[in-house]
Amino acid sequence: MQARGGSGFMVAKKGAAMQTSNRKSGRAGGRSARRATREATDFSMLPGLTRSLPVCEVMDEEQVRKIDDASMSILENVGVVFRDPIALEDWRKAGADVEGELVRLDRELVRELIKTIPSDFTFHARNPERNVRLGGKHSMFIPMTGAPFLRDLDNVRRNPTLDDLAMFHKLAHMMPALHSSAHHIVEPYDHAISHRHLRITHSSMKYSDKTFMGMTTSPKNAEDVLDMCAILFGAEFMETHPVVTGNCNGNSPLVWDETMLGAMRAFNRRNQPVLCSPFVLGGANTPASVAPTVAQLNAEALSALAYTQVVRKGCPAIYGHYLATVSMKSGAPMAGTPEISMMNFMIGQMARFYDIPWRTSNTLGGSKVFDAQAGYESATTLSAVMHSGANYIWHSAGWNEAGMHCSTAKFIVDAEQCAMAYRMAEGPRWDDFDAGIAAVSDIGPGGHYLGHPHTLENFQRAFFMPEMMDNNSIEQWQAEGSIEITERALTHARKLLSEYQEPKLDQAVNEELLAYIDKREREIPEADELNQTY
Amino acid sequence: MQARGGSGFMVAKKGAAMQTSNRKSGRAGGRSARRATREATDFSMLPGLTRSLPVCEVMDEEQVRKIDDASMSILENVGVVFRDPIALEDWRKAGADVEGELVRLDRELVRELIKTIPSDFTFHARNPERNVRLGGKHSMFIPMTGAPFLRDLDNVRRNPTLDDLAMFHKLAHMMPALHSSAHHIVEPYDHAISHRHLRITHSSMKYSDKTFMGMTTSPKNAEDVLDMCAILFGAEFMETHPVVTGNCNGNSPLVWDETMLGAMRAFNRRNQPVLCSPFVLGGANTPASVAPTVAQLNAEALSALAYTQVVRKGCPAIYGHYLATVSMKSGAPMAGTPEISMMNFMIGQMARFYDIPWRTSNTLGGSKVFDAQAGYESATTLSAVMHSGANYIWHSAGWNEAGMHCSTAKFIVDAEQCAMAYRMAEGPRWDDFDAGIAAVSDIGPGGHYLGHPHTLENFQRAFFMPEMMDNNSIEQWQAEGSIEITERALTHARKLLSEYQEPKLDQAVNEELLAYIDKREREIPEADELNQTY
Repeated sequence: MQARGGSGFMVAKKGAAMQTSNRKSGRAGGRSARRATREATDFSMLPGLTRSLPVCEVMDEEQVRKIDDASMSILENVGVVFRDPIALEDWRKAGADVEGELVRLDRELVRELIKTIPSDFTFHARNPERNVRLGGKHSMFIPMTGAPFLRDLDNVRRNPTLDDLAMFHKLAHMMPALHSSAHHIVEPYDHAISHRHLRITHSSMKYSDKTFMGMTTSPKNAEDVLDMCAILFGAEFMETHPVVTGNCNGNSPLVWDETMLGAMRAFNRRNQPVLCSPFVLGGANTPASVAPTVAQLNAEALSALAYTQVVRKGCPAIYGHYLATVSMKSGAPMAGTPEISMMNFMIGQMARFYDIPWRTSNTLGGSKVFDAQAGYESATTLSAVMHSGANYIWHSAGWNEAGMHCSTAKFIVDAEQCAMAYRMAEGPRWDDFDAGIAAVSDIGPGGHYLGHPHTLENFQRAFFMPEMMDNNSIEQWQAEGSIEITERALTHARKLLSEYQEPKLDQAVNEELLAYIDKREREIPEADELNQTY
Repeated sequence: MQARGGSGFMVAKKGAAMQTSNRKSGRAGGRSARRATREATDFSMLPGLTRSLPVCEVMDEEQVRKIDDASMSILENVGVVFRDPIALEDWRKAGADVEGELVRLDRELVRELIKTIPSDFTFHARNPERNVRLGGKHSMFIPMTGAPFLRDLDNVRRNPTLDDLAMFHKLAHMMPALHSSAHHIVEPYDHAISHRHLRITHSSMKYSDKTFMGMTTSPKNAEDVLDMCAILFGAEFMETHPVVTGNCNGNSPLVWDETMLGAMRAFNRRNQPVLCSPFVLGGANTPASVAPTVAQLNAEALSALAYTQVVRKGCPAIYGHYLATVSMKSGAPMAGTPEISMMNFMIGQMARFYDIPWRTSNTLGGSKVFDAQAGYESATTLSAVMHSGANYIWHSAGWNEAGMHCSTAKFIVDAEQCAMAYRMAEGPRWDDFDAGIAAVSDIGPGGHYLGHPHTLENFQRAFFMPEMMDNNSIEQWQAEGSIEITERALTHARKLLSEYQEPKLDQAVNEELLAYIDKREREIPEADELNQTY
């Protein structure tokens, strides 16, 4: 409940104490996370959010059961296609009704399987101070990923490189409300598609000591990511500690493909959580109506969530989704629409009904530039997401142009907006209530509070002061050069990057990672498989 | 619960049926509202919103009582200054403890007085199809008012004229989610300050048949507005029907001045509701903390709400406020901050605790241009306002630059955003649930829904398709000229204005209004008093 100090936006407390290690394995000495974070600068990440804001529930209990019943009927009668021979064999053994690629699941089987998914878990970072709890009232913000273009520090739209990706990993590291460096925020086009997952993972690990995500572009790529995690955290540690998340998109309606299922198994076998994410284009691959869309999505999510427990009982898993509604005029995906807000509220209710942590998408939008459209769409989605009670709040910074580019300016502003939403979700503080009321007596009618001791004691943390928003008079704004938000944000990005200090990996760990990458790059022919974005 | 047809944004159904009149008085014949709306074009105003979205409550019952108790203690022990001899005499007679200008109010007296304020009421428009209910689950959107500048159809920032005001009244008339033409959306600088209220009121009445607001810039001005309302609606009708709202700002902390109290009395004596609006600059004229600020604001609002019942028992009244937090770095008022969202949630709880309809401010922001900042701030506030359950949602379109200008482009986009928020607040529909689920069976795994009968029947109303948001590919957007949102919105405004059809006032009523204005303009010396904005 305690409001946080300062603007909560960008605090650079230096000289943080050395950290103890997550790494419990008895592997070759001298590579502990203690040493790995020796030169870390503490950029005061906000702790994982513990919400006090109530969740917005638009369904009554009967309606929640109606969705549940419809979803279970879909699983029992319509079935889900698993385009993957191993999954089909797994399902057969688990007692499902398998007919060709079609799997029909009894509701009892589904309920039995999903009940072993943990309600919440701690997601581990290489710096244990950056660990975050996930599930229930516990939430985290993760930047966008998967952009084939960026708008760079000069606001130029172009294909990204590995250096650009590193820039975003550095910014993610420095923004207090972001709890993850994610993975391929932008696609590093200067590396072969088939080798990228290695470079991306190394970049996530190297430039930030926050949590990160792992590529799921193929089962083999996922294995590589998990091998690299084992180098960083130790394989034994991973057996009992989630250290990486992977996303697996469903092909709505009601299909899971071999790539995603293979990647899912790779994660689950090492006890690492995947996001089971039906990919909804409402009206195109779901019915043209909110509640039936949620029922279909829920069936899809449940089928994959249940499968994670077939692969490994008790493995953490995350109820996921990607949501857009489709314009029936142009076919374009839309964001920030009222139906997306409603679906977020409803999906939150379903995930809580099953007591499973859940993922949503934040700050989505379709604007080609960083304009008012981007602002409206992002803030509308952010707000819905906060009221929905989502746990894993992905795509929280940088998303623009329906995910086609990551905007450097928007990345900065979105991350500040997340810090503001974080504050809202904490709820009001009450610890200074009597002192505040005493100030009202002191000041009395017609006075002002600016010099009052209560004000002087509290003003720093009382009201969030967003740095990216200009609230000065037009005269002052003009005197300062009429600088618009894009330029303000890019200036701030440059300043952050000039202050960045790498939270160095232990040198031996880093060498081992690089040796692994080198080996795999020699083994994997360039461009042997298609790349996928999320 | 029913989702509305089309995009809900701009539907121009022509040839609406003739309306019956609100006007019950037996005044000179031939001036009925039936004739007044004879030539009206129906722009399909969305009915007053009936929410199904749950309200966001950040306080438990004990915390609500804590605020109530603190507010009542402030009223009893600190007191409120009423800078007005008539109010002081009224309070003396009502049994309050009056000492100079300081009025101390027992909580029993306050509770006794406010309990006669109606929980909800119907706010009448000259076209009864535009009536809206206010209070409880019933809400309405009102455009911004009080801007000394506008950004016009060419996006030029300049002082407005009466023609500019008429333009905004026309746009307010045509935007389906706006339920009011308000009053001085922009200040008509081409008219003498002392005469403006007459021209403003006439413009509100003439260019729209929706509800409107009345100027409260002085007690005499308020009387003029109410006289004009009597011409339009009949004095007798007004005795039992709210037809105009006035805003009365408090001077926080804990002061009500003579201008506001005199205007309040003018409205209340004719049984018309005022918004009792403490003007909060959080941290400057309230404590630097959320909960104590709400307690002070609540005391201020209650003192004025109670006074409305001293003036006229049973008169409708609206719990108001204006909320900004103040940057402790620059002194600038801020919008879209987490504390404003929290205060909205809390004030909503207090208003519901007293069972009084309440007003909030929407789409506020401090940007000098219509950029991403404006989008973020507006959408954040709009969202908080919707979750707070506010009834009288003022400043819902056009506000920019901390209220210093009304942006024509933003007016259009905000009004569309209100239509989207309206849809969200209606909640999901369930009437087609079984049909939607049947479609899932029909389509099965791997199909698409675009040609399915359920889709064809429902796509128009299933997903809101905002016209002001461009969700096309960058290639298509570029091919169409890379048109940004400001230009799109201004083009749309021009199109609307070209299609505008005046909902003509009855000729005799209009002549009587003009004669009244003429008389008063001859009586009132130009610029005999200061103008006030809100």
